[in-house]
Amino acid sequence: MYRHATIQQWKVPEPTLRRLPWYLAFVKILKTRGETNVSSTQIAKEINIDPSKVAKDLSFVKISGKTRVGYDIDALIEILECFLGFTASHKAFLFGVGSLGGALLQDSGLKQYGIEIVAGFDVKGALSGRNINGIPVYHTSEFPQKQQAMDAKVGILTVPVEKAQEVANFMIEGGIRAIWNFTPFRVRVPDNIVIQNTSMYAHLAVMFNRLAANAE
Amino acid sequence: MYRHATIQQWKVPEPTLRRLPWYLAFVKILKTRGETNVSSTQIAKEINIDPSKVAKDLSFVKISGKTRVGYDIDALIEILECFLGFTASHKAFLFGVGSLGGALLQDSGLKQYGIEIVAGFDVKGALSGRNINGIPVYHTSEFPQKQQAMDAKVGILTVPVEKAQEVANFMIEGGIRAIWNFTPFRVRVPDNIVIQNTSMYAHLAVMFNRLAANAE
Repeated sequence: MYRHATIQQWKVPEPTLRRLPWYLAFVKILKTRGETNVSSTQIAKEINIDPSKVAKDLSFVKISGKTRVGYDIDALIEILECFLGFTASHKAFLFGVGSLGGALLQDSGLKQYGIEIVAGFDVKGALSGRNINGIPVYHTSEFPQKQQAMDAKVGILTVPVEKAQEVANFMIEGGIRAIWNFTPFRVRVPDNIVIQNTSMYAHLAVMFNRLAANAE
Repeated sequence: MYRHATIQQWKVPEPTLRRLPWYLAFVKILKTRGETNVSSTQIAKEINIDPSKVAKDLSFVKISGKTRVGYDIDALIEILECFLGFTASHKAFLFGVGSLGGALLQDSGLKQYGIEIVAGFDVKGALSGRNINGIPVYHTSEFPQKQQAMDAKVGILTVPVEKAQEVANFMIEGGIRAIWNFTPFRVRVPDNIVIQNTSMYAHLAVMFNRLAANAE
């Protein structure tokens, strides 16, 4: 009954958007345990953050709970998944079919989160015409032509770091509107282009430092 | 000449640890261009942050630049990589050889950032005894025994979300000291255990929302 809800068309604060998937994950677990209702207090306790923050985050989603009963879990899952864009299918091109890029092509689980990688691009001639996990790989020069047919809005950036800016520019010129950057380089983009950095290596740096500090 | 430097044994502020890999990436690019020196102002301009912040971040690394000349690029790369723990080899076990877990086993590039996945574990019997990208996969029940032989400090968590807490507890009981969590679940750990969350799905949620907002 919520299937006609769509992803929100206005900017939701980034911290809220980062926390909502945590709530979604927790509520999905409750569902597997046979629960039917959940309160914002219960979510707050589990996630270990302030209950008023949870209530405020959920107010963006515009789902109403009932006093003493809380939210209906099925409805909450459906609405959250839709709100977060996970039920849509966002076509994506992946640039740089190296070690990490090839690995991401293998990760079929991304589809459940609203992203469908429809093609990979690489400058290595030997990769062109190959097929990884059902996804075709083309030479980078074929991107403008493939884009005409496929109109992908998302570009995944997994090229070597020294090519990051150049390939990002190329993606944007070809019509990519959002860049998911896995390189450790801070790519610069115009204001109307969305960029999200998944800094795996920065997370490792923090982890190693904390490990060494704890070992003292 | 810097090879005896070790990862810092005290807690460096997390924002600093997250920015240093950006500087490293940029300086490596300068090196490929044949540059030999770089100033903190130059780094600040490229990364688009305050020069005083760059100088402060680099003060943790204890490398000294020369007035008007700046930092020696080769030395800066070597010291930063060492400081960030990327030159060490941290043994890691991966738990949950599903779509994302299997993909991470394929990503040989992680080695360059100081992490070496030495084994994967999964409860699916069909995976046991398999070998992915040269990395053996065992049944999860074999973890305590393999840990005795391998003594891995890092555990990569890529299990289904409803198993995340249970497997995290199991990892910690078995001697894992740092958890790299790729699930969208907020895992709870004791104070002496390091946790880093790589929230790929949260990044997607932000990206989709901004894309929709920009399309208005």
